[in-house]
Amino acid sequence: MVEGKEAAGEGTEQKVERSFGLERIVFFSDAVFAIAITLLAIELKVPQIDQGADYTAEALWRAVAGEWPQFLAFFLSFSIIAAYWLSHHRYFRYIVRYDGGLIFYNLAILFFVALMPYSSELLGEYGNLSTAIILYSLNLCILGLSTAGLWYHVTSHHLVTDTLDSTTIRRFQVRSFVTPITALFVIVLALLVGAYAIFGLFLIFVIQRFIDLRAKPKS
Amino acid sequence: MVEGKEAAGEGTEQKVERSFGLERIVFFSDAVFAIAITLLAIELKVPQIDQGADYTAEALWRAVAGEWPQFLAFFLSFSIIAAYWLSHHRYFRYIVRYDGGLIFYNLAILFFVALMPYSSELLGEYGNLSTAIILYSLNLCILGLSTAGLWYHVTSHHLVTDTLDSTTIRRFQVRSFVTPITALFVIVLALLVGAYAIFGLFLIFVIQRFIDLRAKPKS
Amino acid sequence: MVEGKEAAGEGTEQKVERSFGLERIVFFSDAVFAIAITLLAIELKVPQIDQGADYTAEALWRAVAGEWPQFLAFFLSFSIIAAYWLSHHRYFRYIVRYDGGLIFYNLAILFFVALMPYSSELLGEYGNLSTAIILYSLNLCILGLSTAGLWYHVTSHHLVTDTLDSTTIRRFQVRSFVTPITALFVIVLALLVGAYAIFGLFLIFVIQRFIDLRAKPKS
Amino acid sequence: MVEGKEAAGEGTEQKVERSFGLERIVFFSDAVFAIAITLLAIELKVPQIDQGADYTAEALWRAVAGEWPQFLAFFLSFSIIAAYWLSHHRYFRYIVRYDGGLIFYNLAILFFVALMPYSSELLGEYGNLSTAIILYSLNLCILGLSTAGLWYHVTSHHLVTDTLDSTTIRRFQVRSFVTPITALFVIVLALLVGAYAIFGLFLIFVIQRFIDLRAKPKS
Repeated sequence: MVEGKEAAGEGTEQKVERSFGLERIVFFSDAVFAIAITLLAIELKVPQIDQGADYTAEALWRAVAGEWPQFLAFFLSFSIIAAYWLSHHRYFRYIVRYDGGLIFYNLAILFFVALMPYSSELLGEYGNLSTAIILYSLNLCILGLSTAGLWYHVTSHHLVTDTLDSTTIRRFQVRSFVTPITALFVIVLALLVGAYAIFGLFLIFVIQRFIDLRAKPKS
Repeated sequence: MVEGKEAAGEGTEQKVERSFGLERIVFFSDAVFAIAITLLAIELKVPQIDQGADYTAEALWRAVAGEWPQFLAFFLSFSIIAAYWLSHHRYFRYIVRYDGGLIFYNLAILFFVALMPYSSELLGEYGNLSTAIILYSLNLCILGLSTAGLWYHVTSHHLVTDTLDSTTIRRFQVRSFVTPITALFVIVLALLVGAYAIFGLFLIFVIQRFIDLRAKPKS
Repeated sequence: MVEGKEAAGEGTEQKVERSFGLERIVFFSDAVFAIAITLLAIELKVPQIDQGADYTAEALWRAVAGEWPQFLAFFLSFSIIAAYWLSHHRYFRYIVRYDGGLIFYNLAILFFVALMPYSSELLGEYGNLSTAIILYSLNLCILGLSTAGLWYHVTSHHLVTDTLDSTTIRRFQVRSFVTPITALFVIVLALLVGAYAIFGLFLIFVIQRFIDLRAKPKS
Repeated sequence: MVEGKEAAGEGTEQKVERSFGLERIVFFSDAVFAIAITLLAIELKVPQIDQGADYTAEALWRAVAGEWPQFLAFFLSFSIIAAYWLSHHRYFRYIVRYDGGLIFYNLAILFFVALMPYSSELLGEYGNLSTAIILYSLNLCILGLSTAGLWYHVTSHHLVTDTLDSTTIRRFQVRSFVTPITALFVIVLALLVGAYAIFGLFLIFVIQRFIDLRAKPKS
């Protein structure tokens, strides 16, 4: 379906064309990330209160406050998509070539990013049912695995810049497994303790922070 | 309506302006592709289950699982739009000039890409009725013909780079007819055997793969 | 609210910054055009047919065919937004500087482009009422006037490249009044003959074509 | 979560990579701004009038005119998002480096921009209840504080170009507090006088204009 490798020839003009190809991939991905992250808010439905006796400022406060699970889902999903966009951003700073494999993993990432508004709405509406938490975590888990796959692919197929040292490669790879493993853990937890498991997802940010802090002295 | 040719003058500055024009066309197209592919997921409606006796994790499982035709339509449409974006990407790696004809074909492509969320929702909701399959395939067919028309136009009007050999030109042209012909075949099939015809669309990916594999030794 | 002019200093670095500013304006505009044009299709609602006795392929045909006013509105609005994107594209090929006025006119254009999905849905649902036609034409009219204003502003404030001749400037200006005048004409027509007036809007494309053809020998 | 600083090394190639990183941040932000500003119009619902005796052109006029609070909310929110996009645009003309702090503030801005369609719809539907005005102003207030935080961060962490004088830095900082303070004032006003407080928000544009005009002679 793709022939990125064809364009990886030599010579200045070819190089420009290749860069153009890579830039369009990055651009297209950015647009999908941006649309998905903004559409999350579209799933936030304005509450409906009737024009009757209860049409008061207080009633609207209660109605909006009653939507807290949707707001929490929005905040969590926004943070997660933003974190994945940052990973994507970080990876592509080092990627200088592309092939069909890169395009495959990248499209897989975009597929599961595009699914996030659906999973997020599911979580916002049915967050007290374990089903919603399991499906949301499953979405995250596969999104994380696609990202891990992308990094594994580009580093093992020489698509990254030569200046990239093996310590950074390994650190990024370890980091890429934090989300899938945490998400799996939350799925098991949801089967055991039900809806409270959702708070396990915040571990993602804690563990990634820990990995970043440990890495600082080395870099 | 367009005067792309006007800008195809000589001299460095003119050339920069022309490239800028071409880049904006690519950019605008990328944005439409990205929006259409992300909006597909918006058509996935979160199931509604009532707060009564059946408000359980199992009921939500059944409700989400019951949406499998929508998920299948989402997956199929995502793959198809992604494939067309890749074709577009492949073509514009070789296009170095533009004229009114290119803009016309490009807008036709974008029109039928923008229609995909509608056709996809139709397929997801009414996939057991031949009407939905025929209309979806019709959308694909005209989208494919617009793409074939774009490639024919740019190669016959010298809008591509001179380094592009005639074998690649012909291969891309053959490849561009795979979708329209398969879609026509599925339409006929749908009239004969009804809704099962939809699986015929997966032939698109098989045949394109075959063309790509046959081409590899030559390139 | 804006200080574009501040950045219009001399020297290479300043110039780069200024170009970056201009590019972001173009980029932002392109994104709004692309989103508005793709959202038009979101207003196309998939018809609802019940699971009863009438749940047949024929019923779905009739239901989709019954949506022809929506499809016509979609096609018309897609063409109009595309035409305005092309005008924008054409103007910005010649614009090399920006100021607060340019940003004002550009935001006015984007405002009325963003309103198009609403006006288009109004036309698609209530096309048999003169109100919808008048409001749709009004949207077009002000969008056209904003575009005419942009061109007048950039050419009279020396924001365009010096190589641009006065004939082209005048022709673009004349062309920019075709939509507002046709839209006004359709509004008057709608008050006289009602909903049929909508077909008058197709005059826009005919007249613009005529202006372009007359201009060709000169250029 | 971010390692922007890592890339802030020396040497030409590093510099290109850094610029690419910065450009992607700007690009991603532009896309979110553009999507949020266009989605505002999606919240404008076409009125529903029945096919009965009252299905007349006059009834549609009344129905559309009755939506004036939604149109006012759309206009106000469009102006505010546009103004914030312009601020963003102005700031990033001077920003030449980035770090984790910049990314944090920028994501905070995008979060509250993405929330605007929700707040705007709330205002459009319940503008006669003080709750809607307070929540809308709260959204604005935090959006404004994030922007003020971004400018404070980049100027105190040497992420801006060296050519930027301290007068401009200070003026931008003062300007960045206009929205948060006006929004707070409107919140207090809403608690006192109710829904009329909304008109206080227009003070934002007046005060910013005043700051810009006072600054002109100096620059």
